Amino acid sequence: MENFTYCTPTKLIFGKGAIEQLPAALKPLGRKILLTYGGGSIRKIGLYDEVKRLLADFEVYELSGIEPNPKYTSSVLAGVKLCKEHGIDAVLAVGGGSVLDCSKAICAGALYDGEPWDLITYKVKAQKALPLVDVLTLAATGSEYDSACVISRTETNDKVGYLDEHLYPVASILDPRYTYSVSKKQTAAGAADAINHIMEQYFCEKHSALTDGMCEAAIKSLIKNAGIALREPENYDARGEFMVDCSLACNGILSIGNSPSGWPCHGMEHALSAYYDITHGEGLAVLTPRWMKHILSDRTMERFVSFGTHIFGIDSALPEQEIADRTIAATYALFESFGIPMHLRDVGIDETRLGEMAHHIAVNEGLDGAWAPLSEADILAILKASL
Amino acid sequence: MENFTYCTPTKLIFGKGAIEQLPAALKPLGRKILLTYGGGSIRKIGLYDEVKRLLADFEVYELSGIEPNPKYTSSVLAGVKLCKEHGIDAVLAVGGGSVLDCSKAICAGALYDGEPWDLITYKVKAQKALPLVDVLTLAATGSEYDSACVISRTETNDKVGYLDEHLYPVASILDPRYTYSVSKKQTAAGAADAINHIMEQYFCEKHSALTDGMCEAAIKSLIKNAGIALREPENYDARGEFMVDCSLACNGILSIGNSPSGWPCHGMEHALSAYYDITHGEGLAVLTPRWMKHILSDRTMERFVSFGTHIFGIDSALPEQEIADRTIAATYALFESFGIPMHLRDVGIDETRLGEMAHHIAVNEGLDGAWAPLSEADILAILKASL
Repeated sequence: MENFTYCTPTKLIFGKGAIEQLPAALKPLGRKILLTYGGGSIRKIGLYDEVKRLLADFEVYELSGIEPNPKYTSSVLAGVKLCKEHGIDAVLAVGGGSVLDCSKAICAGALYDGEPWDLITYKVKAQKALPLVDVLTLAATGSEYDSACVISRTETNDKVGYLDEHLYPVASILDPRYTYSVSKKQTAAGAADAINHIMEQYFCEKHSALTDGMCEAAIKSLIKNAGIALREPENYDARGEFMVDCSLACNGILSIGNSPSGWPCHGMEHALSAYYDITHGEGLAVLTPRWMKHILSDRTMERFVSFGTHIFGIDSALPEQEIADRTIAATYALFESFGIPMHLRDVGIDETRLGEMAHHIAVNEGLDGAWAPLSEADILAILKASL
Repeated sequence: MENFTYCTPTKLIFGKGAIEQLPAALKPLGRKILLTYGGGSIRKIGLYDEVKRLLADFEVYELSGIEPNPKYTSSVLAGVKLCKEHGIDAVLAVGGGSVLDCSKAICAGALYDGEPWDLITYKVKAQKALPLVDVLTLAATGSEYDSACVISRTETNDKVGYLDEHLYPVASILDPRYTYSVSKKQTAAGAADAINHIMEQYFCEKHSALTDGMCEAAIKSLIKNAGIALREPENYDARGEFMVDCSLACNGILSIGNSPSGWPCHGMEHALSAYYDITHGEGLAVLTPRWMKHILSDRTMERFVSFGTHIFGIDSALPEQEIADRTIAATYALFESFGIPMHLRDVGIDETRLGEMAHHIAVNEGLDGAWAPLSEADILAILKASL
């Protein structure tokens, strides 16, 4: 195992009626709350009214309309402004990964005197952040149980991942019923996102029986429960286990002590979303099997064999190359079976800007240092193969 | 999944040289430190001197001689007295599970005005506790990553488990090299303890693909790495993975959302240790296969089949009863292969007090409410079968 420091101080409050613990979770943090959310979905499912009822004893300000691939100027800066104007004590995010990510950036920016973008791009290290509590309505990114956020800046085609230990939510409220209304498209994209999160940790140099087994358990659970949730959107147990899978998938516990991998698919997908504003999980699903095919080599073979035999039950007696080929095909078929469009063209991306994106990725994402290093030419080849 | 609240705020600092982070971990907690440890082992491996060097800028008081199955009067009360006398700010435990457990009870007792036993027996709820940092020298109990401690009171043959959210260590320093000198006997007992921790969570009513898979991963990793560590005590990777396995084994993450099991083997073993002061992990190894045999029924069969096929690779095409029988035999053989004495008589326990212990367990441990309920007669039968 590699040296590591691991700490996730977030309290996960899971289950039917978990929302009732919201006032107790917020009370120690202060009285002035900024409630953040996205479009209208939390109103449709009655959650907005429920939250407002529970916040009766608090002074509540609101930031609504947070977009998918949340935007720096229209959402992060707007939220920071509200926090500073009203002396907000804590942020309550109600939504999915985009709302949570945006709210994390707001929490950091609210207690910083300069330009928040300097924090997000690590020009300045955050010394503190407002405390964040969230109520999750879409299982996918794992933002409810990690210290990361991803923020887009449309003007510069940047989509930047930002991690800081101050950004762990204080508490995350997970009631699977709030995800019943999540569409097939978003459920599938969430599953692809979480599966890729784990693959990004699994495909690395140093790993252990413990981390391999935990990663495989979580991926198999995601496959099983995504399948059920797509057929039966109101299956409580499937939505619940899927939710917890997603929370653990991005949190580091499943790969504790593994060597870093460089998260190459995320590095590439961030450009797709930044340039074309596509759904993150769909971009990942398209890229993943093409990335696998591109990095397959004698050096990386062991991971493909392990993944394929354990996840898809491919016969370990077959030749390694055969196992690897079947593993890549099975990964493609899995995402396709979720109903995800499996070509960039299907999500509105053509060849026009592939070169520009490959350059942007090569310059900004450091993938030449990934476990399987990717040069600009490698990235372009993967993007072209994904068309 | 069942409703749950999960939060482990402890920072795990793992790896070669992790000890260098000790001053930084203690500094925010205060200047007056109570250093707690057991017999002389930390002096033998040079760790005592290393810790004292790193604590040069702190005011250090010491409590040494903490026993295995740590005792309330001689250790907990002695530590509480030192804390109150000197206005201790934080406790630094250097040792294995017994030292850590004792130190947790000291941390709670130090900030309580009454009799600490009232906290330990839940007569009074702790409102706060001194912060605890630890340096682990024996991988087994998982005390470095949970909120539990087990304290013995010799006068009354009590050995009581006490959990409180104030008892999570602030930071746990895990350098696998500190466990190189752990004897074969203690390494084996540690493995049995951790494996049983996971079995106590696995054998329950409600579980998931996620928790089953994570539990199986950790048990398989423990089996693999205990085997290596027993043969090669200075194998860094094996000692390291074993250490992390043990930390996760008792922490709840592996069984997140499972229904409670009642921890029956621990309930029974606590009496064995309280009456005879035996090694906890050895007592568990003796009891586990006898408990399995006793509770096997149509209702519990599914867990045996799952455990046996996934952990021991028993052919799933066999009849269920055959799989279950082989699973119990394989569990016995596993602990025996570690070199653990597999009969109570081997650890100095004869039939004299079995009835008295069974009664004590039935009265104090609530095992009639366990997943597979145990009456006093059941407990006595298991103890007799373990002779």
